[in-house]
This record gives sequence, structure tokens and C-alpha cells, in this order.
Amino acid sequence: MLTIKDIARLSGVSVSTVSRVLNDRPDVSEESRSRVRAVIEAENYIPNNTARDLVRIRSEAIGLIVRGVQNPFYTDIIHAIESALDREGYTMVMRQIGSGDDEIASGAMMEREKRLRGIIFLGGRSDYTPEELARVTVPFVFCSYTNSYGTLDPARYSSVSICDEDAACSAVEKLLEKGHTRIAALISDADDSSISQLRYQGYCHALKKHGVPLRKELIFTTGDSFRIEDAYEAMRAGLRRTDDFTALFAIADDMAIGAMRALREYGRHIPEDVSVIAIDGITVSEYIHPMLSTICQPKEELGERSVALLLDMIEGRGGHAQITLPTAFRAGASIRSLK
Amino acid sequence: MLTIKDIARLSGVSVSTVSRVLNDRPDVSEESRSRVRAVIEAENYIPNNTARDLVRIRSEAIGLIVRGVQNPFYTDIIHAIESALDREGYTMVMRQIGSGDDEIASGAMMEREKRLRGIIFLGGRSDYTPEELARVTVPFVFCSYTNSYGTLDPARYSSVSICDEDAACSAVEKLLEKGHTRIAALISDADDSSISQLRYQGYCHALKKHGVPLRKELIFTTGDSFRIEDAYEAMRAGLRRTDDFTALFAIADDMAIGAMRALREYGRHIPEDVSVIAIDGITVSEYIHPMLSTICQPKEELGERSVALLLDMIEGRGGHAQITLPTAFRAGASIRSLK
Repeated sequence: MLTIKDIARLSGVSVSTVSRVLNDRPDVSEESRSRVRAVIEAENYIPNNTARDLVRIRSEAIGLIVRGVQNPFYTDIIHAIESALDREGYTMVMRQIGSGDDEIASGAMMEREKRLRGIIFLGGRSDYTPEELARVTVPFVFCSYTNSYGTLDPARYSSVSICDEDAACSAVEKLLEKGHTRIAALISDADDSSISQLRYQGYCHALKKHGVPLRKELIFTTGDSFRIEDAYEAMRAGLRRTDDFTALFAIADDMAIGAMRALREYGRHIPEDVSVIAIDGITVSEYIHPMLSTICQPKEELGERSVALLLDMIEGRGGHAQITLPTAFRAGASIRSLK
Repeated sequence: MLTIKDIARLSGVSVSTVSRVLNDRPDVSEESRSRVRAVIEAENYIPNNTARDLVRIRSEAIGLIVRGVQNPFYTDIIHAIESALDREGYTMVMRQIGSGDDEIASGAMMEREKRLRGIIFLGGRSDYTPEELARVTVPFVFCSYTNSYGTLDPARYSSVSICDEDAACSAVEKLLEKGHTRIAALISDADDSSISQLRYQGYCHALKKHGVPLRKELIFTTGDSFRIEDAYEAMRAGLRRTDDFTALFAIADDMAIGAMRALREYGRHIPEDVSVIAIDGITVSEYIHPMLSTICQPKEELGERSVALLLDMIEGRGGHAQITLPTAFRAGASIRSLK
């Protein structure tokens, strides 16, 4: 069977040039175009078993599995991924799954259904085993998380993420610096092997480092959700149990916004009664009242670096790598100093 | 050349069943599967001119052109579209373009590049001519807008939208009912043949209906943007010119959120000094302080009905139609009564 790689080899151009010619794109030199076309003409008769196999010839589709539907943090990343893939002549095929769904099963199914060349997982668990990942046979990159709890050989997987534990630790330290010691945490799950657990560990680490005892009753959980609605409900339920805190660390901006509504409805002003900090840096968090203080992730860069890493693997320029990107604190108006 | 339609005809099953068989999906009866496979085997040798043509055999891709990158209003709609297409065995291929980009040119190019079966335009101009649309040769649906200012024959295009002028009129009437007469408007452009112009017309219509003179100096514009950043800047610039208003109608929730920050920074409290209403009903607008009063669009239904309409055309069950869906007022806490 003739593959796009064969055509590239026979015509002496890159795979992405062949793709551009097949797609009738303007950004190809006339010379490359005629060389590719000559090879295709010469190979006119293509032996194959089923019609289905033939589509492989120009499968330049990259799957994007987005876990945690409607998470506004992903909007800018998805845009960056789509732009970068498009620039390189690939097609992004996106599938959005719920936060409780299995992204690896979705990826493996999508790889077969859509004849993918590669997959970017946007959000997922951090505890994969080699057996689970074996179901995915094309190159892949974890975007915005990595395999912190898993048993994968670092030579066998790729990721582009921040260090979630450090980000959480630095967020909580911003509160400690301002004199807060009764600091609540709003998380998804303390034990789900996801970024929720990592950020929870960062919270615990910061308290320990500063000699502040961990108080379990100040940990509010949504279960397995990162949604604003569920954060609001978790905070409401939590406040019926205890309101003995002066500050709140939420593991995500969107969750902080949900929690802030619950706090206001309970009669607590932000930051006068309760200071709030989170992680992510979603656009809207800069416009709400009060502006949210947060640890910003480099959203566009997470998307762009993920695409670059994936295409290096697909096009044979490089192997697996784990990339950690820096974060930046954005001072809003949601933290009050107790000093 | 053998097309997916030929295979469907020869094997006596529907096109979507053939697609499911080609994609190895489980939701196909064994009988249908073996009939489709028998046809494919029998037609083993497929005459064709270029390898590229062969891919047509299973192009079940639907293009989604999203105009106005990063508009949070689209998040829920995109999810609804993706779920509905997936359920029917189609692949959604999304391309995000800037608010100033030409969606028809993008659609026409994408149709060729990706061998699309159909296109959904999410956001766009409302003034297409038959000549412009002739560049798109596959079925298409305008989602969230329609051809209000264009010269298209209603028998030749499809749309699923709300009535933007009525929605804007009813929003402004909510302010008039509470005794406001000095009502500013934050729009993108008064004359861009987009939903911005329609909503601006609804604003003018409401004022006229209630005998309130239109004051041009109270119209604030972003140019061609619906982005929160640009709404914030437009409101800041506008306040340097005049602050002689007690209420603001913003054509979109996200723009209202941007404007509210500018108003606060100028020293105006919401709703004590300025009441605010908008249109869309994005999720976060229910969680900000104060909760935004707005006219909600039926987001999921806009997506689902667009897919149903498009697939009816692709699969030969129906022709073009323009569908108008109802809106619903959500009372927040951003409007103060002057009575």
C-alpha cells in the first residue's frame, strides 16, 4: 500500500509538503507540487485489500481529546493547538469527554475510527500504566498534565505541563505570607491521581513547610468535577459544616469563581472576610469583582509546545520528552493582608 | 469512482451504517456489517485518477467554522454539536477564525482541504450574497445567526438562531420598565451587518417604542470585536467622554463583564449607580458579582438543531430551513429600579 510517507520518499519532499499538495494548498512551490503529482500519477494503480485502507494515504488528522468538558481554561490552549496544527498542514479532530470518562479508551477508539497520526490529550489522569498506554499506537502528548503517579518509562511518553505541586505550594504561600493560617482548600478529590491530588499535595506541603497544622475539616471536595456549578455547591455544603477560615485556596480559577458566589451568599465578603487564590489564569478571572489573584499557566505555550513535540515524533525529528513550563503570579484584589 | 453512497446503495443500508462499518464501530448489526463488507470486497479494484480522490470514500467529516475566537458563549454550543455529530457517526473538524476573518472563504477552503460533507458556521455576517455562498458546494447551516441583511433566497440557506433584534429590544425594555431612560449601549459596530447591528437595532427600537430619544454619545463601540478585553477598553474610553447614563445594555454577556470592570474602576457601583443587562447567558455570568441579568440563548438546542438540520440535508431527508428559537430572561442582581 502506498502511504504518504512513501510518496514523500519517492518525490524527495517532506511529508507535510505532500500533505499540502494533496490538500491543494497554495503554500507549496510549483516544483514540489509537480514532483509529488508525478509520483502519484506513476503509482496510479494502488493494490489494497479493502477500500477503507486507502484513506490512510492522506490521514493527516491529529486527535485532540479534551477531558473535562466546558473547562474555560482550555479555550486558549485549544486555539493555540488548532492554529499550530493548521500551520503545519494537519487537521485537528477534537473530541470532548466528561471528567469521569477514560481518555485513553477514547483515544484508542478515536485512533482507529479517525485514522489518526497522533493524539494530544488535554487533561487526564496522572497514573497511567504501560499496559493502558499500549492501546494507543500512534505518537501522543499529554498537555497540561504529566504522568506523576504512573509507572510509565520516561522514554515512552511525552508531556508539556507546569509543576502542579509547586504552583499550589506557591499559591498557598502567598496566603501564609499575608498572615493567614486558617486556610481552606477547594479541590476535586484528594486521592484521584490527577492534578487535583497534586495541587492538594502542594497545599499540604506549604502548610507543613510553614509549621501550620493540616485541618481536614477545611478540605472541601467536589468529587470528580472541576465545574463551576459543582464548586459552588461544594462550597455551600462545606459552609454548613464550618466557616472557621480566613482564606481559601481553590485548585482552579473557575472553581474559585463558583466558591466566591457561595461565600458571598453566606455573607462573607472577599477579601475582607475571606481571601481567595487559585491556579490557571483564565481570561474572565481578570475581569470579575474582585479580580482574582491567581497563579497563571502559560496557556498558549502549553498548546504550541505540545504540537511541536508531537510533530517532531510523527515526522521523525525527535523522541519522547517531558517538558515543564514556568508559571507566573498575577496579583488581583482577592487577598487581604492580616498583618 | 466508488463513493460511500454507492456502497450504501449496493448493500442496501444507510450511508451512516456504511460509515459505522468503515470505522469499525460496535453499533452495527452483524448482518449490515457483512453486507457492507461483501460489497467492498466485490468492488476491490477501484479505478481512479489520483490517489487523492480515493479518500472521498469515507469522508464523513463535517466542518465547524467558529468565528470570534475564544467567545465563551460558543463553548456549550460546540460541545452540543460535537456530541450530536459523533452520535450520528460523523467527525467534527473545527477551525477557529478571528472575528475579522471571512468565514465563507475559510469554509470554501476547508471544504476542499478536508473533503467535508457539510459545514456549520458558528457566528458570521448576516449579509451574504448568492455569489459568495456559491463558493461552498456542500450543505451548510448558520448557527446562532441568520441572513438578515443578505440577498439569499430562503430556499437556498439554513440557519438556527434566536431573533436578535427582539432579544435586544426585550433586554432594553427590562431597563425601561425599571424607570431608566439614560441607557447606554455597548456594541461591536452599529453597521457591520452582524448580530451587533441587529442587537443595536433592537436597542433603538425599544427606545423609540417607549418615546425615549436616541443619544448617539451613549453608544460605545469596540470596532469589530466581541472580546472581553476590547469591551473593557471601549467602556474605559467611553467613560472619558461621558458618564451621563444610569443603565448599560451590552450586546453580549462577556462584553458586559468587561464593561463592568471599567465601570467599577471609574467608581461606579453596579447596580447602585449603573444597571447592566446583556444577551447570551454564558455560564460564568451566573457566578460573578453581581450576578448578571441577561437574556439567555438556548445554547445546547442551537447546536443540536443545527446538526439535525445539516444531516437531514446531507442524508436527503430535508431541504433548507430557517429556524428561530425562543430566549429566556434570567433575573440576576445587576439591575436597580429607579421607581
